[in-house]
Formats: sequence, structure tokens, C-alpha cells
Amino acid sequence: MQTGVTTPKGFRASGVACGLKKTGDLDLALVASDSDCVCAAMFTTNRVQAAPVLYDKEVVAKNPSTIRAVIANSGCANACTGDAGFSDTCATAEATANALGIRADQVLVLSTGVIGQRLPMEKLQAGIPQAAKNLSPHGGSDASHAIMTTDTKPKVFAISHQQYTIGGMCKGAGMIHPNMATMLAVITTDAKIAPNLLDQTLRSAVSKSFNRISVDGDMSTNDTILLLANGASDKEIKEIEELREFEDTLSKVCTNLAKQLVRDGEGSTKFVEIAITSAHDEAEAVRVAKAIANSPLTKTAIYGGDANWGRVVCAAGYSGVEVEPAKMKLWFGDVNVFANGMPTNFDEADSTAALAGNEVFIRLDLGQGDASTTVWTCDLSHEYVTINGKYRT
Amino acid sequence: MQTGVTTPKGFRASGVACGLKKTGDLDLALVASDSDCVCAAMFTTNRVQAAPVLYDKEVVAKNPSTIRAVIANSGCANACTGDAGFSDTCATAEATANALGIRADQVLVLSTGVIGQRLPMEKLQAGIPQAAKNLSPHGGSDASHAIMTTDTKPKVFAISHQQYTIGGMCKGAGMIHPNMATMLAVITTDAKIAPNLLDQTLRSAVSKSFNRISVDGDMSTNDTILLLANGASDKEIKEIEELREFEDTLSKVCTNLAKQLVRDGEGSTKFVEIAITSAHDEAEAVRVAKAIANSPLTKTAIYGGDANWGRVVCAAGYSGVEVEPAKMKLWFGDVNVFANGMPTNFDEADSTAALAGNEVFIRLDLGQGDASTTVWTCDLSHEYVTINGKYRT
Repeated sequence: MQTGVTTPKGFRASGVACGLKKTGDLDLALVASDSDCVCAAMFTTNRVQAAPVLYDKEVVAKNPSTIRAVIANSGCANACTGDAGFSDTCATAEATANALGIRADQVLVLSTGVIGQRLPMEKLQAGIPQAAKNLSPHGGSDASHAIMTTDTKPKVFAISHQQYTIGGMCKGAGMIHPNMATMLAVITTDAKIAPNLLDQTLRSAVSKSFNRISVDGDMSTNDTILLLANGASDKEIKEIEELREFEDTLSKVCTNLAKQLVRDGEGSTKFVEIAITSAHDEAEAVRVAKAIANSPLTKTAIYGGDANWGRVVCAAGYSGVEVEPAKMKLWFGDVNVFANGMPTNFDEADSTAALAGNEVFIRLDLGQGDASTTVWTCDLSHEYVTINGKYRT
Repeated sequence: MQTGVTTPKGFRASGVACGLKKTGDLDLALVASDSDCVCAAMFTTNRVQAAPVLYDKEVVAKNPSTIRAVIANSGCANACTGDAGFSDTCATAEATANALGIRADQVLVLSTGVIGQRLPMEKLQAGIPQAAKNLSPHGGSDASHAIMTTDTKPKVFAISHQQYTIGGMCKGAGMIHPNMATMLAVITTDAKIAPNLLDQTLRSAVSKSFNRISVDGDMSTNDTILLLANGASDKEIKEIEELREFEDTLSKVCTNLAKQLVRDGEGSTKFVEIAITSAHDEAEAVRVAKAIANSPLTKTAIYGGDANWGRVVCAAGYSGVEVEPAKMKLWFGDVNVFANGMPTNFDEADSTAALAGNEVFIRLDLGQGDASTTVWTCDLSHEYVTINGKYRT
């Protein structure tokens, strides 16, 4: 069984319930390495950043090669909590360091949940030693449960590549939007790699995975992706070809986790893949794809199983890219519904059938160039409105 | 009773049912002036533009001073219909010209409804003479009904300003997004005014009204605002002070109609006014306001009556404007919920009460400068999803 962050050698993890969630579910995750890790990280580009984001940025910048642990809580985002909130994050790192016998600047902190509430520090202080005590080489699964918020299932994945392994977990369900780390993710590897190379590969892999998904276009205050490499496999990645393979493997792990996020998007009933082909360049392809992925009218039509292809064409039209309607071709599944600026003579039953399952494939060919991209999203359902109308209550 | 487009002197209008709507409701509107009109127009910035948009652009550019009529159908957008669709629009203008005894290049055409279907020309050809026959100085109300699609009520307004009157009608409900004409609107006035001045005043008035509203962030292929001035009042607008008053009156008409659009937004249960104050400049204020207005998480929270202020702060953070959380202050109604980077000690019952009615006022002070703006939007409800999941069926 894949346990995600504990699949690579030399990592242990745990998940405990310390009372942050009213339900009594697991709400505190700890991931620890037996030896120092090189760390690469990406953070939300939101101007409003949660205390743990501000804290982790400092720690990773100062100390990218001796990270030992990540402590993550759900139930409270510790965002919009001012200086007091920042102190809470520092105290969380210190308590974790004490429990593990390491330095506080070797600990990174993640928080997710409601914005604007202080962390209940007494509960955390009680939970942290428990989490440290429960650390296990099989604890990745518990950890992945403990970071869930409105997620309906935990998200883990790992790939072993000859001499090393990359594993990870992530959470997220709403406030998922491309452009930078779009949720919480912790990825571990037992490969050995220099900090600058690790950073490069993470940015490249994220650009093709987590930055290619969208649930609702909202970008969170807390989004963070952490990648820890402890070198326990003794395999060092430094040659160009090795780096390429490492990045490729990392991209596969990130893409798998990113797709799991979309499949579990808040209220999602359908997984939607949007492929843009024949664009002038990749940036334009992404811009068109995201306009479609974020269009409420497109997303509700998919939810309703209504092959309203005009909304897709319309969204491409307002994407900001100079698309040319007469050159565009659109497919729902393998049904070509639009070409030459007009609907084709497709059979409505076929296009409806293409939307009937819980996986929908849309391809829009722009007829302008050689670039392409793929973006993943989900539909917009009644349940999304229900979940988000009453999130705090 | 206000009849909108027929309140100014010298305009007649009608609305008939010619079978474009399956329900048998009014679906063809005609607005005609007894004398030639100066015309100003604004169109969608979507790259995918419906046939009537392409047609009207040509006519208004070539012939801005002798427009006599606007023929508008609902039930079919005539968008993504290629050259054949363009010919249909030309034929619609010709039929209208024949029925009225004027030239085809004196007729503007509007269409709204489903994208990608051809206009049923036989029905239109039969309806147009009927619409011409029914023209009446009191027909503005019928016309405003005939342009409705998912609108639940017609939208008309008029103001008389000393020697002249400005009146109008509009439709829209989904695909409403700021930036250019965001729906169909026909505005009439019996003032006399030169084409370039009419154009200036329209652009200015729209920037403060129709371009300050959002329902779902989707921008249509058909959006058009037409302003016709027939000079029937004999009052000529040319002095600076007169122009300022005319623009002010026009802005009031546009703002009233724009707010009616938002109040009737698809599935809308609450009207939301978002005021941004103390911004560096107006463009930044608008950018922040629109990020909040388009945030699905903010809109669903308002629908649910959940004073989840963190989502508002979060949306401001990802707006692209360099907001400073520590300087921001946020109010729901008159309850200050956020200041100094933290929630205030507000009473949750008060903030919940501020969301309880069907009018919600949000004010975000950025603490950075002197500029401000106001944007209007609505909440995101279960009903929006229902309407748009099955629009075509």
C-alpha cells in the first residue's frame, strides 16, 4: 500500500486528533526525516499570507539544507491573525523541535482551515508530543488524513524510480486555483540532490501539475508545496540525464496528486480535462484553458450534462488571447461540435453522451500554432454552493 | 408609468411573439424613431462576436447620424453561425427596413439567447411586419418584455431633465461581467447632440455603471449598448455644462438599469454592493472590487448568510493589486470585522445580521490612497446552478 510521504526511505509520519476539528477526526500531522533534508518550497502568490507561509519562507531561505520535520494542522488556517498568529507558528515549531530533539529552525509549519481564528495553542501543545510519539515508517496514511478539511478522501501517491523514490500527500478542495502552490502538499524523496537543483525541478514540475488545475478560481492565503530530500537512498542526482528523469518522476507524482485534488473538488461530480492544441505558444494555451476551466457557465453546463459548446467557445473568446473563431475546432470527447465558425452537423445525442460519464474531455484546437497544454478542473454543482454557503457553521 | 425607450419624445416601440421562444412569450422587440437618430454604441470585447455585433459595428461606423430603428430578438443569439448567420442579420435588417419604409442601413439588430443556432428566418420574417404594425408611443414595456431570456422581470428606466428625457431598457441575467457593454441595452433620448459628443458621454456613463457590475464573470458574445438621440425635444446639448448634466443624467439611467440587472442576476437572492475606499487609484480600486465580486467563495458565503470575512480579504489579496493586509479595514454593513491584519472583537451576531437581508453592503478600505469605487454584484446560489445546468433543454 502506498503511504505517500513515508514511501521513500528514512521518513516517518503520524496523524493524531488533538481537538482542532469538532468532529474528533485526525487534525495534526507530523512528517519527520531521520536525517537532514534539502528543502525546496513554493508558496501562494496571494498578498495576504498566513503566518505559517511567512514563517516557512524565512526558514527555507535561511536554512535550505538541514530541514528535519513538517508539522501540519487542519481546522485553523492561522491567516489574518497578525503578530500573535506568527508567534503561535513559532511556538508550534519550537514545541515540535522539543518533541523531536532538533532545532526549531529545522521545522516547517503548515496550517489549513478557517481564516481569522487563532490557533488553540493548548490543544496543539498537547498534540505535538503525541504526534512525535506516534511517528512510524507507515504513518503517511494517517498524516494524509490529518491534513484534510473539506476533502472527502486522503490524497497520497508515490513512484519508485530505480534507485530512489518520490512520495507525497496533499489536501485541498476549495480555493484551488492555478498559479503557485494551490493547496498544501508535502513531497518527500530519498534521493540526494543539491538545493538549487531541487528548487529548479520543483518549479518545473509544479508548473505542469499543480499550476494546471482549477476548482473555483479562488487562490488561498496558505497554499504551500514542500519538497524534502533526505538522501537516504544514497543516490545522488547531478547529471543532466538524471536530473531530467528526477524531474519527470517528480512531475508524475505532482500530476497524480493534482488530479486527485480536482477529482475531490468541493461538490465535484465530474472530472474535466481541457486540452488546448495548436496555440501560438504555451502561455496562450494555458490562458485559454484556464478561462474555460474557470467559467461558471461552462462548469454548470457540464454539471447538468448539457453539451452547451457555445459557452466554451465564448470563454475562449474572452480569455484575452486573440483567438480566431473561424480557425477554432472544438471536441466534446471525440465529437467535433464546432468548426469554421459554426456548429458542425453533430448528433446532439452523441455530444450529450460525451458528458454523461464522470470524466469529461474537452479539446479546443486554436488553429494558430504548435503549442498545446492540458488543464484539469471539475464541474460546479449544487453541492459546491451548499458546502461553501455554510463552511464555518 | 415609465415605459423606458418610449418615454423620450418621438420614439415608438412594440413587442410581439413570433415563435422564437417555445413558451409563446414575446420574443421580438422593435424600437423606432420618427426621425433620424444620432447613434453611439458599445460592444462586447469578446473575440467571438455574434453576427449582429459584427453587423451593427459596420452600420454605426458608416452611418452614425441617420439610424431609425432597432430590431431585437430573444431566444437565439445568432452567434457562432458563420457567414450564413451574418446573412440572416442582414435579412433581418432589410425586412425591418421594408416594414418601416426606411433604408436597411438605418436599422440596427440585436439578438440574445442560445449560441450556435441559426435564426428561424421564416418566423422572423412573419414577426417583423407585425412588430412594425404594433409600434406605439407606449410600447416600451412590451419591447422590454420581448428581449428577456432568463430574466425574471423586464428592466426599464427613464429620467426627464428639464428640456429632454433619457430612457432605456436592458436585459441580461447570466454572462454578466464588467468590461464593455455587458448585456443588451437600448437607451433613447430626445436630446439633440453631435455623434462624437454622444459617443463620449456613453463611454463615460458606461464605465461607471454597466462596467461596474458582475454576475458570474462570464462575458457574452453579443453584449451591446445602443444609445439613440433623435433631437425631438429640440434641446441641443453642446455647452460644457449641458454636456456634464447630460452625462450625469445618462449615468443615472445606466446605473439604475445596471443595478436592475444585478438584482435579477440568475439565481440571485441578495444584491451586494462592494465599496473600495482609500485605494492608490481608481483602477486598483476596481480591480480589488471585481476580484471580490467574482470570488465564488465570497458569493456562496453571502448566499449562505455566513459572515466569512476571510474570503473577502483573501480575494483582495489575489486581485493583483499590492494590498497591505495590515492597512486594510473591512466592514459588513456597519460592522467593522477586520483591521490591523486581524479580526476585530466584533460580535458574530452583528456580522451575521449584516448579511441577513436581501441587500448586503461590504466596504474594504485599503489604507493606501484617496481613490474609491463601487461595484455591484449578487450572491451565487443553488438556483444559479440549476438555471445554468439545463439552460438549453
